[in-house]
Amino acid sequence: MNTITCPIPKIENERILLAHGGGGRMTGKLIHDIFYPAFSNPLLEQQHDGAVFNAGNSRLAYTTDSFVVDPIFFPGGDIGDLAINGTVNDLACCGAVPLYLTAAFIIEEGFAISDLKKIVSSMKRAADKAGVSIVTGDTKVVDRGKCDRIFINTSGVGIVLEGININPTRTKAGDAVIISGRIAEHGISILTCREGLSFESSIKSDTASLNNMLRNLLEEVPSVHVLRDPTRGGVASTLNEIAESANVTIELDEASLPVSPQVEAACELLGFDPLYVANEGGVLVIVPEEYAQKTTELLRNHPEGRNACRIGSVVSEGKAQVRLRTIVQSSRIVDMISGEQLPRIC
Amino acid sequence: MNTITCPIPKIENERILLAHGGGGRMTGKLIHDIFYPAFSNPLLEQQHDGAVFNAGNSRLAYTTDSFVVDPIFFPGGDIGDLAINGTVNDLACCGAVPLYLTAAFIIEEGFAISDLKKIVSSMKRAADKAGVSIVTGDTKVVDRGKCDRIFINTSGVGIVLEGININPTRTKAGDAVIISGRIAEHGISILTCREGLSFESSIKSDTASLNNMLRNLLEEVPSVHVLRDPTRGGVASTLNEIAESANVTIELDEASLPVSPQVEAACELLGFDPLYVANEGGVLVIVPEEYAQKTTELLRNHPEGRNACRIGSVVSEGKAQVRLRTIVQSSRIVDMISGEQLPRIC
Repeated sequence: MNTITCPIPKIENERILLAHGGGGRMTGKLIHDIFYPAFSNPLLEQQHDGAVFNAGNSRLAYTTDSFVVDPIFFPGGDIGDLAINGTVNDLACCGAVPLYLTAAFIIEEGFAISDLKKIVSSMKRAADKAGVSIVTGDTKVVDRGKCDRIFINTSGVGIVLEGININPTRTKAGDAVIISGRIAEHGISILTCREGLSFESSIKSDTASLNNMLRNLLEEVPSVHVLRDPTRGGVASTLNEIAESANVTIELDEASLPVSPQVEAACELLGFDPLYVANEGGVLVIVPEEYAQKTTELLRNHPEGRNACRIGSVVSEGKAQVRLRTIVQSSRIVDMISGEQLPRIC
Repeated sequence: MNTITCPIPKIENERILLAHGGGGRMTGKLIHDIFYPAFSNPLLEQQHDGAVFNAGNSRLAYTTDSFVVDPIFFPGGDIGDLAINGTVNDLACCGAVPLYLTAAFIIEEGFAISDLKKIVSSMKRAADKAGVSIVTGDTKVVDRGKCDRIFINTSGVGIVLEGININPTRTKAGDAVIISGRIAEHGISILTCREGLSFESSIKSDTASLNNMLRNLLEEVPSVHVLRDPTRGGVASTLNEIAESANVTIELDEASLPVSPQVEAACELLGFDPLYVANEGGVLVIVPEEYAQKTTELLRNHPEGRNACRIGSVVSEGKAQVRLRTIVQSSRIVDMISGEQLPRIC
């Protein structure tokens, strides 16, 4: 019923590998073998980017993410706006209006306070742009050499829009798969920056908050089935997760994948498939066919969605698979990422 | 109007010191100079262990904490139950019933999965005991040497009990100051474990969730003014924070401070003042004089509160100060912790 074919090592007596944090098959195994059995509860089992629960007469969405990106400053952003945008987008992908965020810092002894100020300013700008408040926080300092400069955790709560039910299990045969922007820009930006590579024009991270765009979309198209930001593991891993949740086959059209010429060139040079490279300002939207055109147009009305386009369809139910129809009209399976392509991307 | 007398270095062009994470004067300076100006909003300015806000017809409390304790396993607990109890207690100290927690892990490559399982089991036990669910999470892995085994962030939301208004600014002259248990046990446990010291009987951390005990207290004594768990910086720093928030003078009675003989011996040997050593299963309760006796009795009905006792009084308003009346009836000022006594205590 799913596409797991590669042997995964048993985790008894084993050690944590970078791939356990890669957002793909190994992360999934860690979650399913260790976290879910221990913490088992209906909210956790929603297996979404966030949990949705009732509080009084409201439905709240709740999410958390730690950010360990290396380097902490990169073209297009830094660990600060990344930490705000990441959590804002996870809430928005639950169909919620993000309201309140927490910020918890783990800082290495000796970190420059001027850098902390830069990061905090950038968090403030990102929070203002998204319309959220940072309402409480925490600061820990660890001795030199015991963490890598700064790690930031943000958690967030938001109110789910009335009448909205975003859930990967709602994916149906016939649905359209739309992406809000060009792919692989965040991952390639981090990598080129980390490796000291330079291309003709610098590739910027796409980090951005998508909540205003998505709220507008949900108000106009309340029947959206799924929203998901394809971060670690990229579009390929995210669509595989959705395909497994809904037990559907998704077919992508290679010719329509939006990749900028610079990112395409960098991917070719470095041997990366853009489908597996992380995005931090894009969202996958799965919507009934009849709303596909309207969805794309609505996304394009926003600067973060100006390159929105349809990239595929849900072609059948009963088999969890993601396939790619290539430019030469052959078809290949697009599996979930298994190892770790680019550690510490977010 | 307050007791800041020691010169604090300017933080322009400066670097983060361990003391910035010590929960005392330097942490306060970092928060007031960098975080508050940037993130400024009315909820953050509540300056509480958590933020309290309305969501629909409920009042919610919301908090976050990262845990970087070293060692990760210690007598009486581990980083797992510490992370659950810490966040549960922060919510309970807002007068809330803790409901949902998030758990975000930053793990060093090579960490033993068997240790991760132990930690996760201990989180589960602590969550069950406190009656909370872990509803969503995150896992990041960083390369070997880029963090110290495992760091855990927990955030939590809870519903504030109706009619309850816990706020340090409500502290009034005449209020009684009560502590729920013996002090300094967590800090001394960590330290002796870290340094490989051994005493006749091992000193255990007091880590425990206090929400059931505090809920019972608030149901019986809704006029409690302040609840605060004296973690980093100990009883001395926590009471100084409260004294500054309310602009009051608090007088402690040295003879009534509950310190076990083993902890007292260890503190003498190591040169620590138990008033500055961290607690993870104790709470300071500030309550109008007329409820002092009832509060102590209610706390003593619970295993975590069996050593509860009154340790002092709020003696006047108009001057922020904490004083200690010593056993020989002299009086000395108890300032907030300024440097870092014991890094990575939680």
